[in-house]
Amino acid sequence: MSRDSSLIATFWEGDEYVVLDQLELPEHKRYLHLKSPAEVREAITSMRLRGAPLIGAAASAGAALAFRGAGEPVDRAVFGSVCASLGSARPTAVNLMAVLDEMRSFYDDEVAGCATAAEQFALMQRRSLEIHWRDHDRNRRMAQHGVEWLRRILPDKRLRVLTHCNTGALATCGHGTALGVIRSLHAAGLLKQVWVDETRPYLQGARLTAFECAEEGIPHTVITDSTAAYLMAQGKVDVVLTGVDRMARNGDYANKIGTYALAVAARYHGIPFAPVLPRESFDLTIPDGTHIVIEERSDEELLVFNGRRIAPAATSGLHLGFDVVPHGLLSAVITEDGVIEGDIDEKNISDLAHRHASADRV
Amino acid sequence: MSRDSSLIATFWEGDEYVVLDQLELPEHKRYLHLKSPAEVREAITSMRLRGAPLIGAAASAGAALAFRGAGEPVDRAVFGSVCASLGSARPTAVNLMAVLDEMRSFYDDEVAGCATAAEQFALMQRRSLEIHWRDHDRNRRMAQHGVEWLRRILPDKRLRVLTHCNTGALATCGHGTALGVIRSLHAAGLLKQVWVDETRPYLQGARLTAFECAEEGIPHTVITDSTAAYLMAQGKVDVVLTGVDRMARNGDYANKIGTYALAVAARYHGIPFAPVLPRESFDLTIPDGTHIVIEERSDEELLVFNGRRIAPAATSGLHLGFDVVPHGLLSAVITEDGVIEGDIDEKNISDLAHRHASADRV
Repeated sequence: MSRDSSLIATFWEGDEYVVLDQLELPEHKRYLHLKSPAEVREAITSMRLRGAPLIGAAASAGAALAFRGAGEPVDRAVFGSVCASLGSARPTAVNLMAVLDEMRSFYDDEVAGCATAAEQFALMQRRSLEIHWRDHDRNRRMAQHGVEWLRRILPDKRLRVLTHCNTGALATCGHGTALGVIRSLHAAGLLKQVWVDETRPYLQGARLTAFECAEEGIPHTVITDSTAAYLMAQGKVDVVLTGVDRMARNGDYANKIGTYALAVAARYHGIPFAPVLPRESFDLTIPDGTHIVIEERSDEELLVFNGRRIAPAATSGLHLGFDVVPHGLLSAVITEDGVIEGDIDEKNISDLAHRHASADRV
Repeated sequence: MSRDSSLIATFWEGDEYVVLDQLELPEHKRYLHLKSPAEVREAITSMRLRGAPLIGAAASAGAALAFRGAGEPVDRAVFGSVCASLGSARPTAVNLMAVLDEMRSFYDDEVAGCATAAEQFALMQRRSLEIHWRDHDRNRRMAQHGVEWLRRILPDKRLRVLTHCNTGALATCGHGTALGVIRSLHAAGLLKQVWVDETRPYLQGARLTAFECAEEGIPHTVITDSTAAYLMAQGKVDVVLTGVDRMARNGDYANKIGTYALAVAARYHGIPFAPVLPRESFDLTIPDGTHIVIEERSDEELLVFNGRRIAPAATSGLHLGFDVVPHGLLSAVITEDGVIEGDIDEKNISDLAHRHASADRV
């Protein structure tokens, strides 16, 4: 991974984890050089890097940085507290927890017994790199499955795809989930245009998804989030694709606030609606969406816009970071191992998870 | 009308029409002193004043200002071209056309024959004032009908009302339409709280509706537009009330972009949804919503905020000012002459219009 591509959100440079500061996009491409788990945690909580898959990958880097420059080998208790701190950076995306579990197991199996901290760091950093590349590979496979599914259900036309938030190279370790499918549609000549929800309050759509599309010449138009349903009514949307922060074992899933409204509108207009996710975004420990913690963030992020307060001082706001889409509103679930279609329920999610498990054993 | 109340959007002061600049709210209360039809037109196109009923009333003031300081009596042709210019300021709200028609008739009947421009101005200005007060009175009656209807369909509880854009004192000549109903609910102790859609891209909700609520101690919380459907799913919204820019004779109506998405979500969740409008907002010359011109505004208004561009330079946006809600999604239509309930269609809209006509004859 190098800086040559503008569409790499994070990379290792020597013993530093380099992060493109997404709060500064699209105006400035500023890179942060992170040297400790605490700096990675801060980048996650402040949303300088965001997107469930990227948060997971960054957590692996944060975990590795616990070993950087340590004089003595890092013991299990110290590493455990670093992971606990990283794990509490944001509550909704499950990828964070999944990757940290993986790093803890790896530590126990292969790192705990190392003679030096330098040796530990080298192993942990390599593991972090593998996690980054694995995410990228999975995104490519998701995109392939997504394109095949769309060609089947919507043949013989170039598609107008509506998407929400940012689920591209900037939300992942490359290519993207929902935006990865869109990117592959474009490469295959099957995309007519992308409707980009601006995605208030952080404007990940207008700032980040539009940035990715502009960089690659993907035809796109930004709209306010409240315009989407009206475009559906006018027959201008063929399919809605979104990312996922956490999917319960019945298919209910949390994603950026506004996703639920899109799912309702898509159902009302008979438009296919599908989440795109890697296996880390499944949380098979919870039966349904009521068990997902929805992050409530500061209302400053809602009421102060570009440094200017937009509401009176006496006014408060409710800033939910996410909402939950019930599985009954999904047309399909697109993953790196295939597409679940028809009624989404515990049975077919579980079948897919078993396919995942088999794939892992290979 | 005086400046004592912070909730008067426009008033006559001597021979000047004074307008509270809504682009500066809530940060600054800046008043513009308008002296010509062209200045009124500019205030409308730039959205320094907005809201269908207020645009109509302001057009009456703009028409009157055509006579201010004129050396000779203003003839029909000159006045006609002034009205044509004012009438083209914004295309969607029908109130503008209705009030200008009224001013033209008044000119023909009572003003054309005046011996001096000063005499003409005095008559036209008085007529403009009457139109302002009439709108205020109608709003009070709408609010009364609205509160009675809500007490009937949702008895025995303090209500959580969701609203969009600004439909209060700042969108009218006082009290408001949908926000007028909310204001009266609050005065009657029947309001639990208002969910205020921020209403991108102009943020009329966060800036103006929140300002009105804060000034009067009405409990309110600002949300992003995309949060509304999720609050409905959680059972936190009892009713949705909106304003109207133009209603066709079958009940289809245009209103601020995002209204359609709310109507779809309210229907999906079985939540009552009602527009609140004065008679000028009916356009009985058109059979349905397909005949309403939807204003497409500059995408700069969407992609630049507070002087900072939020999207890449190569990105374009679609900024529709309004959308159209089909009559089938309405639970009721609230007007100053009563409430239409049940199936909204050409028959009961027409009955109401006849009641209007009778009321006019009194």
